[in-house]
Amino acid sequence: MSLTPAVQTLIDEALAEDQVFNDPTTRALIPHDQEATAVLRAKAPGVLAGVGVALAVFRRMDATVQAEALMADGLPLKPGDAMATARGRAVSLLAAERTALNFLQRLSGIATETAKYVEAVKGHKAAIVDTRKTMPGWRELDKYAVRMGGGRNHRMNLADGILVKDNHITALRARGLSLKQIVAMALKNAPHTLKVEVEVATPGEAVEAVEGGAHIVMLDNMPPAEMRRAVALVAGKALVEASGGVTLTNVREVAATGVDLISIGALTHSPRALDISMDLEF
Amino acid sequence: MSLTPAVQTLIDEALAEDQVFNDPTTRALIPHDQEATAVLRAKAPGVLAGVGVALAVFRRMDATVQAEALMADGLPLKPGDAMATARGRAVSLLAAERTALNFLQRLSGIATETAKYVEAVKGHKAAIVDTRKTMPGWRELDKYAVRMGGGRNHRMNLADGILVKDNHITALRARGLSLKQIVAMALKNAPHTLKVEVEVATPGEAVEAVEGGAHIVMLDNMPPAEMRRAVALVAGKALVEASGGVTLTNVREVAATGVDLISIGALTHSPRALDISMDLEF
Amino acid sequence: MSLTPAVQTLIDEALAEDQVFNDPTTRALIPHDQEATAVLRAKAPGVLAGVGVALAVFRRMDATVQAEALMADGLPLKPGDAMATARGRAVSLLAAERTALNFLQRLSGIATETAKYVEAVKGHKAAIVDTRKTMPGWRELDKYAVRMGGGRNHRMNLADGILVKDNHITALRARGLSLKQIVAMALKNAPHTLKVEVEVATPGEAVEAVEGGAHIVMLDNMPPAEMRRAVALVAGKALVEASGGVTLTNVREVAATGVDLISIGALTHSPRALDISMDLEF
Amino acid sequence: MSLTPAVQTLIDEALAEDQVFNDPTTRALIPHDQEATAVLRAKAPGVLAGVGVALAVFRRMDATVQAEALMADGLPLKPGDAMATARGRAVSLLAAERTALNFLQRLSGIATETAKYVEAVKGHKAAIVDTRKTMPGWRELDKYAVRMGGGRNHRMNLADGILVKDNHITALRARGLSLKQIVAMALKNAPHTLKVEVEVATPGEAVEAVEGGAHIVMLDNMPPAEMRRAVALVAGKALVEASGGVTLTNVREVAATGVDLISIGALTHSPRALDISMDLEF
Amino acid sequence: MSLTPAVQTLIDEALAEDQVFNDPTTRALIPHDQEATAVLRAKAPGVLAGVGVALAVFRRMDATVQAEALMADGLPLKPGDAMATARGRAVSLLAAERTALNFLQRLSGIATETAKYVEAVKGHKAAIVDTRKTMPGWRELDKYAVRMGGGRNHRMNLADGILVKDNHITALRARGLSLKQIVAMALKNAPHTLKVEVEVATPGEAVEAVEGGAHIVMLDNMPPAEMRRAVALVAGKALVEASGGVTLTNVREVAATGVDLISIGALTHSPRALDISMDLEF
Amino acid sequence: MSLTPAVQTLIDEALAEDQVFNDPTTRALIPHDQEATAVLRAKAPGVLAGVGVALAVFRRMDATVQAEALMADGLPLKPGDAMATARGRAVSLLAAERTALNFLQRLSGIATETAKYVEAVKGHKAAIVDTRKTMPGWRELDKYAVRMGGGRNHRMNLADGILVKDNHITALRARGLSLKQIVAMALKNAPHTLKVEVEVATPGEAVEAVEGGAHIVMLDNMPPAEMRRAVALVAGKALVEASGGVTLTNVREVAATGVDLISIGALTHSPRALDISMDLEF
Repeated sequence: MSLTPAVQTLIDEALAEDQVFNDPTTRALIPHDQEATAVLRAKAPGVLAGVGVALAVFRRMDATVQAEALMADGLPLKPGDAMATARGRAVSLLAAERTALNFLQRLSGIATETAKYVEAVKGHKAAIVDTRKTMPGWRELDKYAVRMGGGRNHRMNLADGILVKDNHITALRARGLSLKQIVAMALKNAPHTLKVEVEVATPGEAVEAVEGGAHIVMLDNMPPAEMRRAVALVAGKALVEASGGVTLTNVREVAATGVDLISIGALTHSPRALDISMDLEF
Repeated sequence: MSLTPAVQTLIDEALAEDQVFNDPTTRALIPHDQEATAVLRAKAPGVLAGVGVALAVFRRMDATVQAEALMADGLPLKPGDAMATARGRAVSLLAAERTALNFLQRLSGIATETAKYVEAVKGHKAAIVDTRKTMPGWRELDKYAVRMGGGRNHRMNLADGILVKDNHITALRARGLSLKQIVAMALKNAPHTLKVEVEVATPGEAVEAVEGGAHIVMLDNMPPAEMRRAVALVAGKALVEASGGVTLTNVREVAATGVDLISIGALTHSPRALDISMDLEF
Repeated sequence: MSLTPAVQTLIDEALAEDQVFNDPTTRALIPHDQEATAVLRAKAPGVLAGVGVALAVFRRMDATVQAEALMADGLPLKPGDAMATARGRAVSLLAAERTALNFLQRLSGIATETAKYVEAVKGHKAAIVDTRKTMPGWRELDKYAVRMGGGRNHRMNLADGILVKDNHITALRARGLSLKQIVAMALKNAPHTLKVEVEVATPGEAVEAVEGGAHIVMLDNMPPAEMRRAVALVAGKALVEASGGVTLTNVREVAATGVDLISIGALTHSPRALDISMDLEF
Repeated sequence: MSLTPAVQTLIDEALAEDQVFNDPTTRALIPHDQEATAVLRAKAPGVLAGVGVALAVFRRMDATVQAEALMADGLPLKPGDAMATARGRAVSLLAAERTALNFLQRLSGIATETAKYVEAVKGHKAAIVDTRKTMPGWRELDKYAVRMGGGRNHRMNLADGILVKDNHITALRARGLSLKQIVAMALKNAPHTLKVEVEVATPGEAVEAVEGGAHIVMLDNMPPAEMRRAVALVAGKALVEASGGVTLTNVREVAATGVDLISIGALTHSPRALDISMDLEF
Repeated sequence: MSLTPAVQTLIDEALAEDQVFNDPTTRALIPHDQEATAVLRAKAPGVLAGVGVALAVFRRMDATVQAEALMADGLPLKPGDAMATARGRAVSLLAAERTALNFLQRLSGIATETAKYVEAVKGHKAAIVDTRKTMPGWRELDKYAVRMGGGRNHRMNLADGILVKDNHITALRARGLSLKQIVAMALKNAPHTLKVEVEVATPGEAVEAVEGGAHIVMLDNMPPAEMRRAVALVAGKALVEASGGVTLTNVREVAATGVDLISIGALTHSPRALDISMDLEF
Repeated sequence: MSLTPAVQTLIDEALAEDQVFNDPTTRALIPHDQEATAVLRAKAPGVLAGVGVALAVFRRMDATVQAEALMADGLPLKPGDAMATARGRAVSLLAAERTALNFLQRLSGIATETAKYVEAVKGHKAAIVDTRKTMPGWRELDKYAVRMGGGRNHRMNLADGILVKDNHITALRARGLSLKQIVAMALKNAPHTLKVEVEVATPGEAVEAVEGGAHIVMLDNMPPAEMRRAVALVAGKALVEASGGVTLTNVREVAATGVDLISIGALTHSPRALDISMDLEF
């Protein structure tokens, strides 16, 4: 991935909060000029994401470190696979180790989890998409990791899509508007470059939204049978997204309903870090 | 918790990355002066953490929002419990909803997970402690959430403790030093205000480290029987920390070995977000 | 408008670059505790935009200044109209005067220019829209001023719409793709929440793009007769935007072709500042 | 020009506000490794300014882009002149295009306008100078562009000159001071390294200010005949600056009065962007 | 003094580098809600400067602290004088104590030292002025403290005065220019609002500079007798500044030579901190 | 030293506050392309510290400057010793001169002062240590300079050691706790990686603190005879630090009491800048 200014800022904040430039352990034990090679290695199977960020951590710690990737993001990992090396002052490698791993383990964890969902729906047309339930500060990285796992991104932020959610609808119904009127209002007032997606609770609402002109309907927490009916009723006139309560156990069943998109918040709000370690060689 | 400048910066970054000041959905649908009350409610049992951060998100979004906590961090949550309310412009509440929840759900997730471990070891002297495996940018918040769950903090960063780890030892053994010599070097060169902790792989090494003067020994991935032996051999001359491979399933067994501290990386590297939602009332 | 963090940052940079906290003229002449009232007044007719930003400048200069708007953004101004007052230490008002006016004059200039175009097309359905030709650092403010003048915003930035422009088409034609294929690729790869707009040079291309599925076609620098033909051929199957070479002289003729949108870069790349002055009263 | 930290910050803000690292159009259409050459070309006659900033935009977007100037700032441009090229990933060139042009078009617009005034007064001693009516965030760049057009800079900010303006005089007259006393106070209290300039409304005031010791008098909105008289009365004992209401139509007449400096706010508050485009070649 | 954004930034950096939001001593010992009153008291005689900054430190640490000045900057201090109080949470007062004192002790130290010089030259016309030998990050504060001690400021930075120093002269003499030519070049090319000061080594050079038009001459490290001669030769046609090697021992002798200004680097490069302490009352 | 991000930020702030990119003197006199070599030279004896920071200043001013150290930090300096050179555009060297020297002179001043204390206690075991009385913004640099002078660092900030000071003790005694109870509370609540240091006023208190488990006792302003008694009573069961009122005159006497550490605030709160100058060669 490109190392954008926002990611560089996050790296700086991470190095600062770990006080990497003030590491008394390393200062007490390791000569300033001792050189070493750090090897980053998977200790569990998964999908790699964030190797460029991890290397950037080492380089930002110490510009003289020679860091290079041995594998590209998006590739599958077996235990023992070496994904990158960094050569330079041992004191720098040791001080930056935890920060580099913290980035790499979360991002690879997200990619790994995403890949499991993508694999589970293979053969169905449904794309696995993420949500805005990302860690504050990590939007760009979390969504990148989803792509590396084979998923697609839903909205990057509030600005790149109209999504009329339950709370919007509640607010407008309180003022006497029907769902159709709400959709019409969204279409009329929205920027002309954005599609309008509407959250619905029943197949009937899905039809109403599509008739009102919605480009996408989001089926919120519907049982698979209802989803199937919604898909049939929408009949291709809009994209259909399944949302809420989807797990690895039921995702294939959801995909089989014919929905176009399945969004899964847990990809980014509750991923398990992938086990990756750094070995130092002298 | 105090809302430190670092946390305020993270809030600003979170609001910026979600483009909350450019929310076309809300702008298209909700009158700028419509008022509402947002209620934040638990949808699953857990422990609350981060309510102050969530409120700060709403206030930073819009200084005219009146946000107040109904419950304090550290308290247990039942499904349906309302933890906070925010009253003000509906457009502001809607735009900030996801960011506020993203903070609150992770932090409460960490507190909830921590509390389970703390509960599991009840009756033993072992404290549950965290690690530096926190999300970059979140060190302060992640460690705060651990405290809210009843855990204690290990090092906040590299600077506030000497911790001689495997990679340090490897580097020094490569130069012919014994563990005892390594510990002696750490004691001699370390800042005089810091204790020296040493990672060991066997009870024998634990003894060697303590004889060298180590204030704390960290038993790395030892089976409970070995831990018990290490505890016996150290005999109170140093603190003993268990580390590696501890889960909710085995933590009580680990505690029963008599260790003083049990550190668990998963508290912060892989917590499950607690399910919390925002309801809007008009 | 809401005073977003980005605008607050720009205000800070503006105050810093003018060294307002180091104003030797005022320090040499005006007693630190002399109070005065500043009145901001139009010296030419126009439309007001940015009064909130100007007031924020005074408040940021000196938190004890009492600043209040007398008129709202979007309202028409006659010469002599007082739009705002600020009361407080004369030294603060004098030091901040130029910065406040620099914001207010540009933004009101943009609103004024926009309003002329909006007025010129009255009775036609065409909306006047802006472009991304805004001053670096001013995207949010410039686009806000266009809205205050009665215009609508095109994309806020690269992320909130797909716009396939001449250079993209050149790049893809170099690889042998037809316009239809290009549009298809955009539809396939674009985020599902975004519409696809395509820049075309002839009515024939407009048809090709719409048949390929484009949601919007941008007619680039077409003569009115061609535009009219393009509108007829597209026949409501997509939005039609006129772009390039539109001036106050010819904008009504362009609107009469039946296009939906007319985009005008000059609104933000070359607006004339509106003449506004600050009078100090004691 | 040197690329100062402040300009680098503005470039970063500009890239961020256009979301250049999140450009779905380019991502959808252009292979990440396709290379191209961008050529920046004038489409109208003018004077070049800002080529270094434009190149810096491309480099900041993507450090692997090879960007080089073909012409130096300050040189005249004919339509079709190529001023710079940038070679690298097409995705980077496309994403940065608008930001680079936004800088270049404004700065060259300012230089072009300035050059017209400088040309208009040729043969007279009067220098064309700018004002502090620059775009917030752009002080350094706007003033640089004036120099590139052959103009000279007036104060960079409040700190590098004493300029006693109408509002200062109003404040002090309200306390019973004469113009001469005001000038004396300025001379006494001003930092010893700064000259004292005084705004005056009549030739008589000009004389009074100079007798009081003013180093420079600014004739505010005086008719040419009055200016001529003021110049004669000041008789070389101070610099004389004409200010207010100067246009390309009357600037030569103003210069002919014998003033030393003619300041023109419109150079920076209302310049027309110069038409410049980017062509992509493969 | 006004608390400018630059000073607020320095306060934030100071609080961050002392990790005030992570103070384990206070957290271990003091209940979070215990209230106390801190009193800041002089332990040595001197002149107060920076009380507003110190109060701002406490408020930034904790917005609920009630901090107020009991004395104004610029006033003389006797041992035991209480200059300010801060009431609020004891944990906040304790954590911020050192940072607040670090600001206050340096600034009062500078004011105290300055006041000694000012006192020493009483009766002579010479003003005591500072230099640009301030601590990086502290320019604004250091110069403010000099004013509080009764001194005047020389240039705030490179931009607000022309000062032709030895290294400039060396560079130009290497190209064959005489001092008079150098002065002429400075006058011709300098911004028209700035005076020209020239560093000279002998009375003869002083004359040459003044004949060339210099507004100020700086006598560099001249013995008093030479200074007296230079003053006589310059004869009021320019300001005369003494610089270099001035101490409290010889400053009166220097002032007696008739110079207008005496600049003293040690005021800001080597001040002794004034002894000030914080007492906590419950 | 490593040039950490915090130091780079301070360098940027220093260059900005001196307006180095807007130096009218140099612009008026020196051709933009004239090259020169700057040599930094000691004018007084001392110990070098900060040469890397000074070089970084020149490089940040102008990336084309070739700057290199001729001597390493920590080495003794004689008058005339050249410690570094910088070759490049004369305008850049001249504009950055003062900022570079301001860093170098303070840091070398601290190292020089520290070295005198270290020399004075030679033969005794006492280490010379600093305090947290550093200049806000300079913590890292000031403490680095102490190390370069042969001193050792006390706490870097509040977080890396427990230090129970007079104000803490006052607060707790007000609630009825004895010193022993206070120490016990600190031991119980402190992070397990930190030692506990306690400030005491008498040998008796020292004993009480050590019996309570304190790892370090700080003897506050005790006369040498009392210190000697305290050392004897503590008898090696804790480290003993002397603090308060130590000068070059009495430091050897203090060291002779047998204390382990002598802390001296003046090293960083009141160092004299070392005299260093920059010569320009063409």
